[in-house]
Amino acid sequence: MTDFTRADPNGSTPYTSVTRRIPASTIRRLSHYLRSLEDLEGSGGATVSSEELAIRGQTTAAQVRKDLSHFGSFGKRGLGYQVDELRQRLCQILGVDRSWKVALIGAGRIGSALFEYPAFESRGYECVAIIDSDPAKIGTGRSGLQIHGPEDLESLLKGLGVELVILAVPARAAQEMAERAVAAGIKGILNFAPIRLKVPAHVPVEDVNLVMQLEALSFAITQRRSDA
Amino acid sequence: MTDFTRADPNGSTPYTSVTRRIPASTIRRLSHYLRSLEDLEGSGGATVSSEELAIRGQTTAAQVRKDLSHFGSFGKRGLGYQVDELRQRLCQILGVDRSWKVALIGAGRIGSALFEYPAFESRGYECVAIIDSDPAKIGTGRSGLQIHGPEDLESLLKGLGVELVILAVPARAAQEMAERAVAAGIKGILNFAPIRLKVPAHVPVEDVNLVMQLEALSFAITQRRSDA
Repeated sequence: MTDFTRADPNGSTPYTSVTRRIPASTIRRLSHYLRSLEDLEGSGGATVSSEELAIRGQTTAAQVRKDLSHFGSFGKRGLGYQVDELRQRLCQILGVDRSWKVALIGAGRIGSALFEYPAFESRGYECVAIIDSDPAKIGTGRSGLQIHGPEDLESLLKGLGVELVILAVPARAAQEMAERAVAAGIKGILNFAPIRLKVPAHVPVEDVNLVMQLEALSFAITQRRSDA
Repeated sequence: MTDFTRADPNGSTPYTSVTRRIPASTIRRLSHYLRSLEDLEGSGGATVSSEELAIRGQTTAAQVRKDLSHFGSFGKRGLGYQVDELRQRLCQILGVDRSWKVALIGAGRIGSALFEYPAFESRGYECVAIIDSDPAKIGTGRSGLQIHGPEDLESLLKGLGVELVILAVPARAAQEMAERAVAAGIKGILNFAPIRLKVPAHVPVEDVNLVMQLEALSFAITQRRSDA
């Protein structure tokens, strides 16, 4: 749900702002393929066909080939893809062949919940700073880090070279914190606040809006009923 | 990020499985319009133009009119939309003009975090049951509810008439829990487990995959760099 509507105001086909314009749905499938390849490598598989990746990703073999074709030529006709080679290439494409310094702004349940995901650290995302405005939390520890107040935001983000921010503050504080983080040089935002952030077009924003996802469910169920 | 790829295997244009086939991006914008209308109503506005809804939703006036046209005729040329009328109609369309009984399966941080959203309850989503497999949690209370063990799943979901499930269990347990919930009659799943659930096509699934959203950020940043 990357908010690329800022770059693409008609919003009906979400594209990345990169010049090659890869659909957001393609990026999601690349993540799925990467997971499948890791599973295959774990179980000793050396090659995989587009058909097998399609079944695991619940898409079609033609779609797998089309998705990968955005990034060059992979695999050999009739032989499929080399699992380790394609996995490494997908890691490069998704930018997870390196580590990313992440700061958590807002140390409530929802922001901290991310650290429960085993994949968070294994994918190279490393939380290096936690910021919260609650005086009762400032100075205490969480996951081996000391929680800092908002006044330390700029010095922390710049000093530690933070690139990604998990923004999990109430809606009223989100825009200001986002602007300060962008001014401090961060490059992307995972946004839990239920507002559309206004940030420069070169800073990608991924919105997590759980209530909106619940609404998509109640919409689907309601519409099915009224169609019946 | 509704997983409609099950119904639409090419996956490049996510559509709902309803016969009218509304794009998922439209549903997200409807949620945004509803929020704007609520803000307007709160500040005493009686009418609103498609241009104003467009600015607030960061889209175009033409897109606003197109999105609403899926659901009938709204507004009058030159006069705009009646705020209260359109708000009520959007509530009906999104299915939030009624309450929904929700069960939380998996009482870890991430599942419980949803209850921190003020909009969760105000939108009519009511958590009526919490299930967890941890013996240390079973029998204890959370948000005024007693946590039950997985053996109570069917009796709870059926007995309480639960329609929506928030599935926040580890990946290895998710498919089994989803199948049991579907068999117990639930109608939709908000899935936090990092796997693609296999459920019947009439049960919509919304996937929340935070690591995949982080990957979309690192992808966008990485690709921009390699383009530069």
